[in-house]
Amino acid sequence: MHGDDTDRTYERAGWGARTPRGSRPAVVVVDLTRGFTEPEFPTGSDLTDVVAATGDLIAAARESGAPVLFTTIAYGPADVEGGACAWLRKAPGLGILRAGSELADLDPRLPRQDTDPLIVKKGASAFFGTDLAAMLVTLRVDTVLICGATTSGCVRASVVDAVQSGFDVLVPRACVGDRAAGPHDANLFDIDAKYGDVIDQDDALAYVRNPTATGAVVP
Amino acid sequence: MHGDDTDRTYERAGWGARTPRGSRPAVVVVDLTRGFTEPEFPTGSDLTDVVAATGDLIAAARESGAPVLFTTIAYGPADVEGGACAWLRKAPGLGILRAGSELADLDPRLPRQDTDPLIVKKGASAFFGTDLAAMLVTLRVDTVLICGATTSGCVRASVVDAVQSGFDVLVPRACVGDRAAGPHDANLFDIDAKYGDVIDQDDALAYVRNPTATGAVVP
Amino acid sequence: MHGDDTDRTYERAGWGARTPRGSRPAVVVVDLTRGFTEPEFPTGSDLTDVVAATGDLIAAARESGAPVLFTTIAYGPADVEGGACAWLRKAPGLGILRAGSELADLDPRLPRQDTDPLIVKKGASAFFGTDLAAMLVTLRVDTVLICGATTSGCVRASVVDAVQSGFDVLVPRACVGDRAAGPHDANLFDIDAKYGDVIDQDDALAYVRNPTATGAVVP
Amino acid sequence: MHGDDTDRTYERAGWGARTPRGSRPAVVVVDLTRGFTEPEFPTGSDLTDVVAATGDLIAAARESGAPVLFTTIAYGPADVEGGACAWLRKAPGLGILRAGSELADLDPRLPRQDTDPLIVKKGASAFFGTDLAAMLVTLRVDTVLICGATTSGCVRASVVDAVQSGFDVLVPRACVGDRAAGPHDANLFDIDAKYGDVIDQDDALAYVRNPTATGAVVP
Repeated sequence: MHGDDTDRTYERAGWGARTPRGSRPAVVVVDLTRGFTEPEFPTGSDLTDVVAATGDLIAAARESGAPVLFTTIAYGPADVEGGACAWLRKAPGLGILRAGSELADLDPRLPRQDTDPLIVKKGASAFFGTDLAAMLVTLRVDTVLICGATTSGCVRASVVDAVQSGFDVLVPRACVGDRAAGPHDANLFDIDAKYGDVIDQDDALAYVRNPTATGAVVP
Repeated sequence: MHGDDTDRTYERAGWGARTPRGSRPAVVVVDLTRGFTEPEFPTGSDLTDVVAATGDLIAAARESGAPVLFTTIAYGPADVEGGACAWLRKAPGLGILRAGSELADLDPRLPRQDTDPLIVKKGASAFFGTDLAAMLVTLRVDTVLICGATTSGCVRASVVDAVQSGFDVLVPRACVGDRAAGPHDANLFDIDAKYGDVIDQDDALAYVRNPTATGAVVP
Repeated sequence: MHGDDTDRTYERAGWGARTPRGSRPAVVVVDLTRGFTEPEFPTGSDLTDVVAATGDLIAAARESGAPVLFTTIAYGPADVEGGACAWLRKAPGLGILRAGSELADLDPRLPRQDTDPLIVKKGASAFFGTDLAAMLVTLRVDTVLICGATTSGCVRASVVDAVQSGFDVLVPRACVGDRAAGPHDANLFDIDAKYGDVIDQDDALAYVRNPTATGAVVP
Repeated sequence: MHGDDTDRTYERAGWGARTPRGSRPAVVVVDLTRGFTEPEFPTGSDLTDVVAATGDLIAAARESGAPVLFTTIAYGPADVEGGACAWLRKAPGLGILRAGSELADLDPRLPRQDTDPLIVKKGASAFFGTDLAAMLVTLRVDTVLICGATTSGCVRASVVDAVQSGFDVLVPRACVGDRAAGPHDANLFDIDAKYGDVIDQDDALAYVRNPTATGAVVP
């Protein structure tokens, strides 16, 4: 998206390789809560298509028994009135995402099961200050498919942490969304070049349904 | 940079507030190593201006005794031949940044002192898998000025982790650089909107020289 | 407690120094939940004296405005039925500490305020997989007083992480407790030798009431 | 070791269960550096037997291709003269473990290969402020055997972090050592009750040689 010069520079630097895929994927759904998926909230936009595509991916994961994990951002009085969250000093608008409010509720169109982890986070990354990495290790996961919102915020931060944490990372393009097109595209460019493969929904569905039959590479 | 629609959307979401500044800043210099600052290396580009501006900021930090910390990316046989680093599976081009090679050496134009920490990292963020946060806590730092390269890679990742870790974050625009203009601009946009203030060099110099005299806000 | 040989060996190794104290302490109350403080629960013992001493320390902290933070262990269906927590594979007895149950409730004798953080954790350390360190940084804390239960479990693990995270650590002896005397004593020995000062209640109260007047060392 | 009352209390609390074992073990060798294994250094004691047993375990790991990872504690001028490490404020005696000195060198009797990671750490835990967990994830490890010194210090801290990170933990009794018997025994008691199985050397050797043939439980 950034032009031919950038393409040549990135090719020279060795960016844009494809990542291997393991035999134990998990789907991580970042912040598809009503505060992000419903346009009437200031922090939200209409993510109906992203929610639908993520629902399809979750259904595919159930077929192979791949774990599905969800996150929500939810702040309490300690964070908002108590001043215990530095991010809210820079991003005070997020303070409306109160624990217990409908904005922090998972989008009800998503088929969460009772035993799917729901991780409450206070930062951008699903990994920072949470036990997500430990859960993925416990569940013997080697590859994560990251879905959710927003592409330029919590998805980007979670993708970077996922590969830093040792997981191979896939981002199904249909399963991530943002409130603005420019940052969405710019961050998918960075992600695909550097951190994880941005892939089509058909590819994602086939892989999750049958991880060992679709080119899975077990190092 | 993304147009009027994005501006309106971001204003509605409450992005773009200014961050407070504490009385104990530190300068964190991310990956200004020869592999990134010299254009003859595939991973590099000519960052002469960034190195000069960062040198000026370091000199200002010496005046007030503000800590200065450096990072370098350096991979060993365990990472490259041993396969112990997942990021190298997606970004094999980084494997030329070998520990002990000139690419992993700090740019010699930077005035590092013997007691300035030099943190060796394997990921994008200066904080991930390192003791940087612990060092900043030990040194009683409350605000970090992040310099270095690349804006769209290790700087962006470090900025996100810094504010998640509880620090207020400033990014002096003259002190960060990238090998390509599009990703540089797109990431400064995200940073300034969401994670830390992108500021002018004069502002950065004045603040670091005298943190308690230039509007420092101690919560 | 381990005899003269150990004393001589530890003196030679340089263990047992006293730690400095900063000007911004916080009180961290680890797992003083009903599941640990009430003897009728299998995981519990009668910690009435520990709760009372910790309540006194919290009251002293209110006088100086020092932050007070609490933790609770609370497992959900993902952890217990879903198998997402490795510690429960080794310590299945902890699985009775269910989120929403009275065992996960803070001991009601403790004077928690609405803006005091209550951190939900799944591991032994109050820092692991939580945003406790980030909160302490955000609140500009430099020294932590760790209270709670059990001395040989979550207190020990939290003390080690606190000093690793860059904080100076104090453990008021009256404010920590265990279900068995042997492990309690052995762990206080390790803590005082290596990680933080085990101190008397009078000392703790005086320090927290007026951190800058009682020998606080600001590095 | 703490008497019948403690035994009964621990049984009631559900401590002491045996942990499952996975099909992908790794051997993590904590701080078997000359500063700890040679009695002429103030921080050291004669750990000849521990080094020999660990060498045998490493040889067994080579048979199955199980990864072997090493740690060393090594402080630089930033830590010692620069004051950037809080643990050295409590434990100044560790400051003799200087980077580049013989005390920070791995015990030469250990058969380290060039592609075995050697992780430099500043804290007690092999996981804290390092990329050890990320490496283990990248290498698809599910179970860690922790060896090294000292039992009451860095081994204990590493064991707690390992299980918190999602790994099942085994501690071969012959492969860990301490400078004093009391803390050694007390910490093995805590570890076996709560965090990982303390096992015999024969059991460890057989498991590492053939992880899938000796009762490995793959969740």
